[in-house]
Amino acid sequence: MSSPGPVTEVMHASGPHVPALLARVEQRLATLAAGYGDELARHGGATIAAGGKRLRPLLVAIAAGDEAGAGVVRAGVAVELVHSATLVHDDVLDAADLRRGIATVVAAGGREMAIATGDLLFARAFAVLAEGRRPEAVRVLSDASSALARGELLQRADGWDATVTIDRYLLRCELKTARLFEAACRLGAMEAGVNGAERELGAFGRRIGLAFQLLDDVLDVSGPAERTGKHRGTDLLDGTVTLPLLLARERDPALAALDPRSVTTPEQAEDVCDRIAATGALDSARERALEMVEAAKAELPPGLPARQRGALELVADGVVARYA
Amino acid sequence: MSSPGPVTEVMHASGPHVPALLARVEQRLATLAAGYGDELARHGGATIAAGGKRLRPLLVAIAAGDEAGAGVVRAGVAVELVHSATLVHDDVLDAADLRRGIATVVAAGGREMAIATGDLLFARAFAVLAEGRRPEAVRVLSDASSALARGELLQRADGWDATVTIDRYLLRCELKTARLFEAACRLGAMEAGVNGAERELGAFGRRIGLAFQLLDDVLDVSGPAERTGKHRGTDLLDGTVTLPLLLARERDPALAALDPRSVTTPEQAEDVCDRIAATGALDSARERALEMVEAAKAELPPGLPARQRGALELVADGVVARYA
Repeated sequence: MSSPGPVTEVMHASGPHVPALLARVEQRLATLAAGYGDELARHGGATIAAGGKRLRPLLVAIAAGDEAGAGVVRAGVAVELVHSATLVHDDVLDAADLRRGIATVVAAGGREMAIATGDLLFARAFAVLAEGRRPEAVRVLSDASSALARGELLQRADGWDATVTIDRYLLRCELKTARLFEAACRLGAMEAGVNGAERELGAFGRRIGLAFQLLDDVLDVSGPAERTGKHRGTDLLDGTVTLPLLLARERDPALAALDPRSVTTPEQAEDVCDRIAATGALDSARERALEMVEAAKAELPPGLPARQRGALELVADGVVARYA
Repeated sequence: MSSPGPVTEVMHASGPHVPALLARVEQRLATLAAGYGDELARHGGATIAAGGKRLRPLLVAIAAGDEAGAGVVRAGVAVELVHSATLVHDDVLDAADLRRGIATVVAAGGREMAIATGDLLFARAFAVLAEGRRPEAVRVLSDASSALARGELLQRADGWDATVTIDRYLLRCELKTARLFEAACRLGAMEAGVNGAERELGAFGRRIGLAFQLLDDVLDVSGPAERTGKHRGTDLLDGTVTLPLLLARERDPALAALDPRSVTTPEQAEDVCDRIAATGALDSARERALEMVEAAKAELPPGLPARQRGALELVADGVVARYA
């Protein structure tokens, strides 16, 4: 694919201050990783430097409208640090070896390093945000962080249970993913001040976050591995039952009868992925994600400046266009 | 022992508002544990409910002087939540089965539950503190939390290394323990307002925190297990080299030649503890802790009200009188 990718497109649409803000976020993240002891530099630094899409800081920057001050940078940094902390801890949970193509902290430094590194990234997030002297911003981020952790707890509690309801699955997605997207939009809007439309932009962020997680779960089943950077069916092997399987179980009695615990090898997981795909469940799940994106756009208030609206709509579309 | 214990004594000395504050902290902690989903109630709730000495909220309450408002309660709750989060994560690192006599989160719910539970307790700490609308308080707590995590990282980096310097050991103690004691005192003093002596009380807290950790490390070697609730030599089995061994190595060539990795069974660990004790290193380490307590008291400003000073001095003495 030679297309520039949704983030690059959005950066062009959003005006030159947004890439400039993201560059400052990047710089601050690099400074933070380097300036807090060797161990953080080695482990947390690698996680941060490995990058990722920086989708959450992008949302902060766009939601802030024309505001491009230090507060926007801090909010972008804080949101990305919480996201990185979660990734580091998730990798411990999943005992993952690779993330974004590089060795995970848990693989490189062991479980102990990974837990402490995640804790440190987390603590730095709040330290950075507290520089801004906005207690309500700290509250928004800590509530989103609580939701993330609670989502992780629910996911573990639901492990290997293929009989969970779709509502329960959606609640997990909301907690695990959507709430931090919501927080990113709200933190940006807060910086924009009275016209920031914090509530509406928050609702927009929450919905595209849900769509993002749904598509992630589709990609785990649809692969191929070269595109997503991991094998197909890893969720299943971790015991995480997602929408594609929940929908497919309604359509294929063999899948309905399947005990997730019986899937123990990558080959078996790939077979189940093939069966899920054969039911058409992936298209149905993708459709739900697209509906959520449309619902997200409908949350955007009428008075939003055209450039800001255009950029947010591009982000929303990008969330479901990944690898498509 | 039928003595009332240092905390009870302090509560009597500090005036009736301190026990009242601690009761409100306890109530808020219980509400928090119960009000955030079944999983937190089950796992985090047990950790919180199991108690512990509540030494950090006690420091917040005394450092706040006569101030007894909701801000003191919030600060006490936040500090205790960070402490609980750290305990839950430490237990994952140490794969500990028991804490305060009850099953740890990691033993009861698995590593995944424990990581997420710790994250959640951590996030709630900042949410509670942010209610207070004091960005500088958030900053103090996030810096202390960063120090805790960095201390954990250093401890792991130093694992099984008996050649670390005493300065390096003290740095670890400062990061791992003393900085949260300092934060507790500073947060309390902040609530007391202009006369709060934040800097001096912070320095006091940091020094008694150091003494606390030193004595903890002595108790791990001196035991007996019935008194500390765990076997002797667990630090050594975890690869954590502490002051008693560092001092004893200077006095006993056999200990100087000992490779900590060769100590793999509880019986071997107990033998090493006996050898350490035979060198007199435990008394020397206790003496250092006592000196730190005296240095802590010397930090207290002359203008401090007598009741507040008396209560703080009792806490300081209690830190090194434990199990003595």
